[in-house]
Amino acid sequence: MPKVAMDAVIQAQDDIQRIGPFGSEVNTWLIQQTKATRVAIATELNVPPETITLTEDVTVGCNIAMWGIEWKAGDHILLTDCEHPGIIATAQEIARRFSVEVTTCPIMATLNTGDPVAIIAQHLRPHTRMVALSHVLWNTGQVLPLEKIVEVCRSNNTKLMVDAAQSVGLLPLNLTELGADFYAFTGHKWLCGPPGVGGLYVRPQARESLYPTFVGWRSVVVDGQAKPVKWQESGERYEIATSAYPFYVGLTEAIALHQQWGTSEKRYEQICHNSEYLWQKLMAVSGIKCLRDSPPESGLVSFQLDNNNQSKTSLELVTFLESQGMLTRTIADPDCVRACVHYFTLESEMDQLVEEIEGFCEQ
Amino acid sequence: MPKVAMDAVIQAQDDIQRIGPFGSEVNTWLIQQTKATRVAIATELNVPPETITLTEDVTVGCNIAMWGIEWKAGDHILLTDCEHPGIIATAQEIARRFSVEVTTCPIMATLNTGDPVAIIAQHLRPHTRMVALSHVLWNTGQVLPLEKIVEVCRSNNTKLMVDAAQSVGLLPLNLTELGADFYAFTGHKWLCGPPGVGGLYVRPQARESLYPTFVGWRSVVVDGQAKPVKWQESGERYEIATSAYPFYVGLTEAIALHQQWGTSEKRYEQICHNSEYLWQKLMAVSGIKCLRDSPPESGLVSFQLDNNNQSKTSLELVTFLESQGMLTRTIADPDCVRACVHYFTLESEMDQLVEEIEGFCEQ
Repeated sequence: MPKVAMDAVIQAQDDIQRIGPFGSEVNTWLIQQTKATRVAIATELNVPPETITLTEDVTVGCNIAMWGIEWKAGDHILLTDCEHPGIIATAQEIARRFSVEVTTCPIMATLNTGDPVAIIAQHLRPHTRMVALSHVLWNTGQVLPLEKIVEVCRSNNTKLMVDAAQSVGLLPLNLTELGADFYAFTGHKWLCGPPGVGGLYVRPQARESLYPTFVGWRSVVVDGQAKPVKWQESGERYEIATSAYPFYVGLTEAIALHQQWGTSEKRYEQICHNSEYLWQKLMAVSGIKCLRDSPPESGLVSFQLDNNNQSKTSLELVTFLESQGMLTRTIADPDCVRACVHYFTLESEMDQLVEEIEGFCEQ
Repeated sequence: MPKVAMDAVIQAQDDIQRIGPFGSEVNTWLIQQTKATRVAIATELNVPPETITLTEDVTVGCNIAMWGIEWKAGDHILLTDCEHPGIIATAQEIARRFSVEVTTCPIMATLNTGDPVAIIAQHLRPHTRMVALSHVLWNTGQVLPLEKIVEVCRSNNTKLMVDAAQSVGLLPLNLTELGADFYAFTGHKWLCGPPGVGGLYVRPQARESLYPTFVGWRSVVVDGQAKPVKWQESGERYEIATSAYPFYVGLTEAIALHQQWGTSEKRYEQICHNSEYLWQKLMAVSGIKCLRDSPPESGLVSFQLDNNNQSKTSLELVTFLESQGMLTRTIADPDCVRACVHYFTLESEMDQLVEEIEGFCEQ
């Protein structure tokens, strides 16, 4: 988190207590702050603010989209083989509750060759009601060609739910043009915001057929007796109740800082510049192997220990790197180590990472 | 929020960024902090920590309990006429989705005379699968006799879901003895914690039949390939993904401070002492009328402008009080103004409130 965002959280926490956490003045202030966060997110995604639902995290956003469909027995959900365990678990529970079938299509193998769009098209069925996939695959860093996937889904009358955990704050996005139905994201990864604030974009044309599931006072319009009479018109209909409001303010500030540095196109260009720099250096390290044959399209750079390092494990490498102050992570499938580079990552930091990896391999 | 809790939030936010927000060390730290929050809550409720699910707020807890039942067409949900709009909206959407019927029983009229238990018993049906009600009614401050309601529900094979927004941090509680199936609460009201952290107690005997709905990586146990294989054994099965972790630490500190002041019995005694003090002074004010005929059983003290003030509204009174730095709120049904007194509320503050109300009535 940038310091301005951390300071904004502290200031917001102070302001709420100074005004008094319950009352008309603080409510007005919270409504303004919540709106500002929705607007900041909307500018990053190039969508109207009323399409944005604020959520606790990306997974809640995915759950809203997946549980909001009126499932019928015999419906089909298509996942890829690169989805996060939380999304797999959600699909499995929906399958159990509503007698829906879940299958998986093999996308992982298309990292360097092959066509993910063709594979998805082959696995669609007449009763496929939803395809759920990630825009940037969390394991290999592959960027899926979402425009074409949207076309394939739409021609099958299938809703497309995108797990955008690794794409919001990384890719330049115009969700209005892109046309995916549901796009769920978090503020605490590539946007560098606080933990506990994320969101969901619901395409305006998809809103009326996506029913709210978990709901609360934020979801509804009430009458003079405080009784709910209808859903909010906007994405607020999927919001529930009291949230970590000071963190909304932190996320707004983090986004403002990114936008001050440069447009999302310029930030993405720099991320790709950095990931190519790291990828090239890693390609030259004896003892490891990058998953990609060509420079990455995202800021995720995944690599494996090669046959010369059979006695060592990915976890040992990640643990060693953390002991040297460099944070990477293991991925279980495919077994690899994943490094992330942002637009502000320094060449000197990447040089140091590569040196530490070389040192580990030579041990 | 007490200063120690605010400082703990700031320190936790700093710690996470200093350690690095993604990595093995910070994960270990977050698991410890999350466990500490669950333990702190569990000591307040007198339950084992593994019965506690951490949620964003009380309404999310209610939603977990209400959506987790395997509803069948023709099932019945019984609410009272004093429930919060968020819970009513949840029940209505469940009714629409699963062809379940929702009805309401008249509890509001039992504030001074009458037996809420008898009314609930009269409105139970053979197919009533759930009764959803508040332990402390948010509008009138009435405390429902939950032990007896538990008995009535159990003898009808009906699950009892308690909205504990106004009872956790107010009443001394032993949920293990009380025996309600589901008890949903928030940390930011009577516990004086940060906004965005609450929880749900699920009785151990009710856990296996309450299915998780919104789920994520926190809900599941994964295999070596990071694929979900089963639900967590504990209340974690209803938790989802990344939360506002620094606020967990703030809530833990707030609870510790309460416990340092005194036991929950002692705090409740002082709350009742204060609410009786305020109630007695309000009873003596010409122009207003307390809803209760006898001293309140909770820290909520609700009152109305009487016939001598027909030209003035509750909202005008609340707005006037806020302009004088005193935070109360309007309630729509019954039309009234609600004041809250905690164990730390000063007599001088209550005196000032009554003086301002007198001034308003005399205008």
